[in-house]
Amino acid sequence: MSCDIGMYGLAIMGQNFALNMASQGFSVCVGNRSHSKVVTTVARAQNEGNLPITPSESPQDFCSKLKKPRKIVILVQAGKPVDMTIEALSEYLEEGDLIIDGGNEWFPHQIRRSTELAEKGILFIGMGISGGEEGARNGPSLMPGGPKEAYDMIEPILMKCAAKAPDGTPCTGYCGPIGAGNYVKMVHNGIEYGDMQLISEVYDILKTIVGMSNKEMSDLFHEWNKGELESYLIEITAKIFAKKEDREDAAADGYVVDQILDKTGMKGTGRWTVQEAAEQSVAAPVIAASLDSRYLSARKEERVAAEKLLEGPPEESKPLVDKDQIIADLQSALYCAKVTSYAQGLSIIRAASDKHGWDVDLSLCASMWRGGCIIRAALLTKITNALTNNPGLANLLVDKGGFAAELNARHMAWRRIVSLGVACGIATPALSAGLSYYDQYRRGRLPANLIQAQRDFFGGHTYERVDKPSGQTFHTLWDESHKDIGDLTGRTAGEI
Amino acid sequence: MSCDIGMYGLAIMGQNFALNMASQGFSVCVGNRSHSKVVTTVARAQNEGNLPITPSESPQDFCSKLKKPRKIVILVQAGKPVDMTIEALSEYLEEGDLIIDGGNEWFPHQIRRSTELAEKGILFIGMGISGGEEGARNGPSLMPGGPKEAYDMIEPILMKCAAKAPDGTPCTGYCGPIGAGNYVKMVHNGIEYGDMQLISEVYDILKTIVGMSNKEMSDLFHEWNKGELESYLIEITAKIFAKKEDREDAAADGYVVDQILDKTGMKGTGRWTVQEAAEQSVAAPVIAASLDSRYLSARKEERVAAEKLLEGPPEESKPLVDKDQIIADLQSALYCAKVTSYAQGLSIIRAASDKHGWDVDLSLCASMWRGGCIIRAALLTKITNALTNNPGLANLLVDKGGFAAELNARHMAWRRIVSLGVACGIATPALSAGLSYYDQYRRGRLPANLIQAQRDFFGGHTYERVDKPSGQTFHTLWDESHKDIGDLTGRTAGEI
Repeated sequence: MSCDIGMYGLAIMGQNFALNMASQGFSVCVGNRSHSKVVTTVARAQNEGNLPITPSESPQDFCSKLKKPRKIVILVQAGKPVDMTIEALSEYLEEGDLIIDGGNEWFPHQIRRSTELAEKGILFIGMGISGGEEGARNGPSLMPGGPKEAYDMIEPILMKCAAKAPDGTPCTGYCGPIGAGNYVKMVHNGIEYGDMQLISEVYDILKTIVGMSNKEMSDLFHEWNKGELESYLIEITAKIFAKKEDREDAAADGYVVDQILDKTGMKGTGRWTVQEAAEQSVAAPVIAASLDSRYLSARKEERVAAEKLLEGPPEESKPLVDKDQIIADLQSALYCAKVTSYAQGLSIIRAASDKHGWDVDLSLCASMWRGGCIIRAALLTKITNALTNNPGLANLLVDKGGFAAELNARHMAWRRIVSLGVACGIATPALSAGLSYYDQYRRGRLPANLIQAQRDFFGGHTYERVDKPSGQTFHTLWDESHKDIGDLTGRTAGEI
Repeated sequence: MSCDIGMYGLAIMGQNFALNMASQGFSVCVGNRSHSKVVTTVARAQNEGNLPITPSESPQDFCSKLKKPRKIVILVQAGKPVDMTIEALSEYLEEGDLIIDGGNEWFPHQIRRSTELAEKGILFIGMGISGGEEGARNGPSLMPGGPKEAYDMIEPILMKCAAKAPDGTPCTGYCGPIGAGNYVKMVHNGIEYGDMQLISEVYDILKTIVGMSNKEMSDLFHEWNKGELESYLIEITAKIFAKKEDREDAAADGYVVDQILDKTGMKGTGRWTVQEAAEQSVAAPVIAASLDSRYLSARKEERVAAEKLLEGPPEESKPLVDKDQIIADLQSALYCAKVTSYAQGLSIIRAASDKHGWDVDLSLCASMWRGGCIIRAALLTKITNALTNNPGLANLLVDKGGFAAELNARHMAWRRIVSLGVACGIATPALSAGLSYYDQYRRGRLPANLIQAQRDFFGGHTYERVDKPSGQTFHTLWDESHKDIGDLTGRTAGEI
């Protein structure tokens, strides 16, 4: 009656993860605030192969049924419910026991909890879990962060329960100290936002400019999924396009996708990723464009009103459509934009890791994302290899012979797609932002010298010069009529 | 010896603002932690017209020299120095006295301070000040937020010291409760980032694609400053282009702007604006692009390395340059992008005002920005009028007959410029982001339906339908092979 691990919180994700662990041969005690879900889980365990799941009646009962040191995964709503669950359980825990929170939690909360629990000698891990319901059941990507000795306690379980990459590597590993796992998961979700937005822009061009049917698009995505774009999101998009209405009360007899309202919901992780990118002084415009697009999509009523007032290009100004060329270009453009988006996401992780001293292994991140999770894609194997071969790579884009060569071979197609959207009045915010990023990153000299001149003009912020050593600052009296105070020290409350 | 107002903190901004108030006939007692700046300020007061400035020796002495109820402006470094100054002064203050912090402070800090001071009966205002050193001296834009009765105490002083708009209106007014003034100033700075980035992109095209000289660009900006682009930033940019080297040790005999390093510095307000836009679920891609561009500019060494690896378009693929057409198009494109950027900034303020119950008057914001501050521009008079005539305007872009008509007349030029940059490999992140925003905002139907389908596929997030009432949600079993749990309630820790 002493279980290997406990699973507390039995909404779908919790149920599925408990069944996953049990399927791997671990005996799992399950607990939940309302007992009905315990009953459901036990029933499912019987139906899905008589899996070793033990019910519990209360937090005390739950904790009493676990082998010591206890290992408990909790999967309840992020925020206060997590704190309440930890409080309820920790009463019955002892020094050396381990709690693993698997929620999508804002990472500083995990750092706080870890500190609080450490006072009682209880170990704490914040673990990102990706893969949705199905991943939780059959193998998710698991991104744990916490004390290394705590990780070692559960590594055997995680390695067995995690998804497997195409080469068989488990999609998990030690992300770093507390907070690092949640951070890696947060950025994963930001990248996921980017991927989804990029695909939706490609869809818009195929449907609106090229005029393809859902059937044709389904076939195309199915084809693309055999090539360099191979990924879970491309795969399910092919299926989405193919899905016909089967609701009895459906007004139309067409495809489901056409009946779905274009207002996108969201949870917090995409937003956090964008805010964290800004915090870490990292440009992540593809991810930001995908977040902004969700915000704009939500303003459906405003858009419907604006459509009557604001004009797009007249028909006669739109370029002729060469269907095959556009399709080929879209494939390349999507690939290029994806690469820049992943480069941006990884740059955020690196900056945060440097700041917090987490020592996150970027190649491990890419490797963990190869299976189980929503962004799993063939591309991630290339990224894993690039980062394994060159851990100090400043940016994915400069992976010589690898991504750099691929981008060089494809950027003209990307340009044609962005221009096409502009000419037709079809917005491609993420594809465009990726291209701007590429064109900025690859230029040794940007027009930022003018911005520095402006800042020095109106705020005396000083500037560095190309012909003087770095760190030496200069100030110009730009305008004879502009009174210059001259004393540039101790300035406060000034302009940017 | 009883002064009308006190000014504590005498770096350049503080000195200038004290002299400004004294120039308007108010007697000002000045204080500073180190006495030397008090001496400097008094000397300047004598030199600049024997202005009524009274020195003080200590916080106690400073407070004793003020009329009751005391009114004190502090201008010290944002953050801890503000708290220390408040602590030092409040020891000598009484119930009903008023502290006005003029720093660029993160607005929640001001809310905290207000609450703390309220316990002692001391009133507190957080006031954004824009205009740099010169504005502080001769008339800045002043954006105060705090209790209305506190505002009333200083309104006569603010009205006299603030800049005047072209029509004579003082560039100040009651922004709302504590935090609102700093918020308005923060967004002002975000808009300023956008304006500067947009101008730098125009500069890049003129210089790199058209091949114009600094002299020609100076003349062009001078001309533009007589038309719809009339603004302080265009004016100083014309002067910047004209400024020749006069340093004795300058390596070259050319223009200063060419010698300035293209690494842009920044303070916090642009970053905060982008983070707040995300927080408020508002798309502000022009401002975000300007922040990202600063981050990328800072990675100079990476860019120089990337330039050797990553390719742009070959010369033969670049379009022919029609100089006059590009110049005319640039003028329109810059105008359009500016309008979208201001629309985005004002949307951020509105969202925050709604959330916090501040009741900020957007037309007042635009009006206050017409003079004194860095973003002052003819455009702001149009914005003020549009918002005065229609305070409920959902977005500047749908100002019927006004901005909507202007955008309709100009968007094709904007498209040509963005396409030109794409074709030539010259990034225009802010101009492009503005156009994407325009093209998204004006479309009743966006491809977000596909994103909703994806979210329902992998996470069972459900969706709304175009043929069913709003609020009613649906879920599709997209894939027969995809095990669907069916229970869509109580989901937790799932995907986005």
